[in-house]
Amino acid sequence: MIIKRTDIGPQLSRMVEYRDMVYLCGVTADDKSAPAKRQTEQILAKIDKLLLQAGTDKTKLLTAVIYLADIRECEMVFESWKNWVDPQNPPARATVQATLATPDTRVEIMVTACKREG
Amino acid sequence: MIIKRTDIGPQLSRMVEYRDMVYLCGVTADDKSAPAKRQTEQILAKIDKLLLQAGTDKTKLLTAVIYLADIRECEMVFESWKNWVDPQNPPARATVQATLATPDTRVEIMVTACKREG
Amino acid sequence: MIIKRTDIGPQLSRMVEYRDMVYLCGVTADDKSAPAKRQTEQILAKIDKLLLQAGTDKTKLLTAVIYLADIRECEMVFESWKNWVDPQNPPARATVQATLATPDTRVEIMVTACKREG
Repeated sequence: MIIKRTDIGPQLSRMVEYRDMVYLCGVTADDKSAPAKRQTEQILAKIDKLLLQAGTDKTKLLTAVIYLADIRECEMVFESWKNWVDPQNPPARATVQATLATPDTRVEIMVTACKREG
Repeated sequence: MIIKRTDIGPQLSRMVEYRDMVYLCGVTADDKSAPAKRQTEQILAKIDKLLLQAGTDKTKLLTAVIYLADIRECEMVFESWKNWVDPQNPPARATVQATLATPDTRVEIMVTACKREG
Repeated sequence: MIIKRTDIGPQLSRMVEYRDMVYLCGVTADDKSAPAKRQTEQILAKIDKLLLQAGTDKTKLLTAVIYLADIRECEMVFESWKNWVDPQNPPARATVQATLATPDTRVEIMVTACKREG
């Protein structure tokens, strides 16, 4: 079996690996009472952990879509993002505003990565 | 030729297959007068049909993005989704609110899948 | 090294190539004072240029997500899109409304492509 699913819930897997590709769900923060910047930090820590479980890391990100509850919070979110992303290896990214699952969900990030370089 | 396109229209293909990957367009319901739950059922039936045409099925879904016209309808949409998705093999999924092509379009779902396990 | 990143900025790469796959960032127009139709033309020209740099072209598009600041502008955007896309080889596409980075950003398009047919 070469599809591997991690944290399987009734509706979605938190991560799906297929061959050397890694697809993450739209990740949100655990503490949604936190402001956008802190939610982003929590999300990125969760992404790190998932990528590690797949045997890869943020230097192998391919794409990212950032959904923001309010685009005016993008500077705060981008600050956390800039502190986290590998400056030599940022993914292709889109950022858009979208109302998210709950009003206190300020950010949701969906990334893909690969597992190895060669 | 290893790119295969299905239901080619002037603007988009309903499905694109490349090697063992399958990319579906954002699928909407045929009967847009139906409520969100019923629209979702229609969409999922259309996805089943397309995946079948590609020689695969919902157990091999990798990713899904659900766009909802009104996030408050997510419970209804998720009910249809839960009844449909294979509980052992749900995809990595994101769900966001987005105004869609017409006001009566309540849901649009874009999925990717692979064709085989090994 | 088989991940290749193009136009690396502090936050994102404009394009990421991995094996024979090409992932572009969400591309926006350079002249954001232009109306939606003209912004779309600028975006599509930028996409052409990036795909060329990756040794591929629009006939090998796999997916596209079009984000529109106002879905009522979709006819204008689709007119530019129809004039550009290869009628034999359109990608699987989704189109949704989303508030974008700045109020004058009317369109953002994120595509994936592959590099060759066989």
